[in-house]
Amino acid sequence: MKAKITVSPKKAVLDPQGKTVQNALEHMGYKGIRAVHVGKYLEIEVEGDREIVRQQIDEACRKLLTNPVIEDYQFTLE
Amino acid sequence: MKAKITVSPKKAVLDPQGKTVQNALEHMGYKGIRAVHVGKYLEIEVEGDREIVRQQIDEACRKLLTNPVIEDYQFTLE
Repeated sequence: MKAKITVSPKKAVLDPQGKTVQNALEHMGYKGIRAVHVGKYLEIEVEGDREIVRQQIDEACRKLLTNPVIEDYQFTLE
Repeated sequence: MKAKITVSPKKAVLDPQGKTVQNALEHMGYKGIRAVHVGKYLEIEVEGDREIVRQQIDEACRKLLTNPVIEDYQFTLE
């Protein structure tokens, strides 16, 4: 099965990359942009029992894939 | 409304970052991992007509946010 993980900076954390993308979009003429947040996206193809995989992915997110101090994550299993 | 964009390397493109994450997970003891792909995730908060926003986000993905030669993207509007 495939785990799809999205990681984004917590709301309280400065996101200079997002601000840069927002400025670039505005300079290109796009209107109405209120905010841009830039994060990471991971796809992990993994085999095993669904519930165990869910626990392992959650643990891997906390230990390796994200920095829980400054990032939030969500994932789905398909 | 909010556009959620995921960008991942095309299947034919080398993904050294994904391979590195896969190796790290295996060294940490996780079993059954077949592949890892690392990409980008963007959230854009934008106002305007839904259909126009959809066209603008699609255009911005092709022109600025992704490299269509080596990356695929998908987005949803919420």
